[in-house]
Amino acid sequence: MSQTLGTWVDGAVATAVPADDRGLQYGDGLSETILLRGAAPRFFEAHLARLARGCSRLGIDFTAWEALRAEITRIASQAPPLAILKIIVTRGSGPRRGYAPLGTLEPRRVLMLFAAPATPAVADGVRLRVASLRLADNPALAGIKHLNRLENVLAAGEPGHADHFESLLLDARDQVVCGTMSNVFAVRGGGLITPRMDRCGVEGVLRSMVLREAPGLGVPVEQGSLTLDELLAADEVFITNVRIGVVRARSVGQHHFPMKDIVPRLAAHIETLDA
Amino acid sequence: MSQTLGTWVDGAVATAVPADDRGLQYGDGLSETILLRGAAPRFFEAHLARLARGCSRLGIDFTAWEALRAEITRIASQAPPLAILKIIVTRGSGPRRGYAPLGTLEPRRVLMLFAAPATPAVADGVRLRVASLRLADNPALAGIKHLNRLENVLAAGEPGHADHFESLLLDARDQVVCGTMSNVFAVRGGGLITPRMDRCGVEGVLRSMVLREAPGLGVPVEQGSLTLDELLAADEVFITNVRIGVVRARSVGQHHFPMKDIVPRLAAHIETLDA
Repeated sequence: MSQTLGTWVDGAVATAVPADDRGLQYGDGLSETILLRGAAPRFFEAHLARLARGCSRLGIDFTAWEALRAEITRIASQAPPLAILKIIVTRGSGPRRGYAPLGTLEPRRVLMLFAAPATPAVADGVRLRVASLRLADNPALAGIKHLNRLENVLAAGEPGHADHFESLLLDARDQVVCGTMSNVFAVRGGGLITPRMDRCGVEGVLRSMVLREAPGLGVPVEQGSLTLDELLAADEVFITNVRIGVVRARSVGQHHFPMKDIVPRLAAHIETLDA
Repeated sequence: MSQTLGTWVDGAVATAVPADDRGLQYGDGLSETILLRGAAPRFFEAHLARLARGCSRLGIDFTAWEALRAEITRIASQAPPLAILKIIVTRGSGPRRGYAPLGTLEPRRVLMLFAAPATPAVADGVRLRVASLRLADNPALAGIKHLNRLENVLAAGEPGHADHFESLLLDARDQVVCGTMSNVFAVRGGGLITPRMDRCGVEGVLRSMVLREAPGLGVPVEQGSLTLDELLAADEVFITNVRIGVVRARSVGQHHFPMKDIVPRLAAHIETLDA
């Protein structure tokens, strides 16, 4: 990938991963995408906590937390002022072929440093569309950021995606879940609602910051179900991820949202946070 | 993995794959597991055809078919009398970070040769169990052998799996779909029924051989829906994959099946086929 500034595998500079790694073979692992800002990993503890939850859910016995922590801190200290660090933890290699995670498996960590892409102009809000692909309900995998991301790839590959900032994903019941690389919130009656991540989707770190911070700004927040019609009827809509922050939706398909004040206020507050 | 006899990446001897490969990053690719028997790839055309269908479904523009064909033939000619060749085709690396398959992507192929594991004694039939995990309905990914296999990994990691030959997977409606590494058939009224693979599961190559061959043996075959109760009420049950062939189920959980004649006849016939 053109913007890669460095790759480390289990702490050593490397460019490749053993072909028998279960991350490649089965998508048997997890990832985190951390924003490095001012030589420090933003929302560091939240990322590590989500990674730990994912390892626990998949039964991956990752123990090198101190080494991982030290590596991230060291890489961040030498990174450009704004950069992205992607972390992958897989269940490791072999010793046996096959799905069953048998024998002694040594989880493997891969860190990749990227230049942050140029920030697009998002002050006026961004254009969203609804993907054709429907997310599958899979409670066993919901919420965590595992490596089985073909749904995201297929949705982001749909005609129309490239003309929009993001594509929203619905489930088979036509409930709104998230975007391909973001979470989604609706503002209604002065409060926020965001879809629960208990059947599909990823619990984004920036989403968790909004859930934590909004009440302190006098904005109550609820996790619930949200149909597309309910989303379109919202006063404001925004998406979140750690790279873009809180970004207002100008439109979803042909439906345009008026510019109101809760999203800019929330975005400005979240932008100040580092943890 | 201990039994690896060789690894080739894009035709060259290698042990590793670039860390930015989308197969590792997102499970963005496909696999085939081919049995090499008597220095030749068994069901060669069927495997290549399924791989091509998978590439088409995922929009992976793999074109190196002649090179792949030549490599498989060459590796098979030098392999032990019974061996397994795993093929992975991914969408390749970058050029950009992110889910969208943008820019010039050069699909990558990885071939791994393994000694065939010792054949377990299966003449008396094998013991099956029903996994707790339910397969998610995902028509966009159903049928093809893509690299998003965490469901299989989790089911094969359940307590109880190791004590059985295979775990059967149901969907959220409690319909039988397949095993973690096999397809499943029920014999009733002298005919076969096997679940459709249109919402989840993989269309196994050996499954397709049974569908093709059974009518010629006077055994009609149907693809349909099959509840667990219907499976347990069957006259005979068997599972299939290219490594094990047609293997009779002695039991599913506490339910035992009598030994009858259709499965051994079918197994013996399928065993003789090479294409």
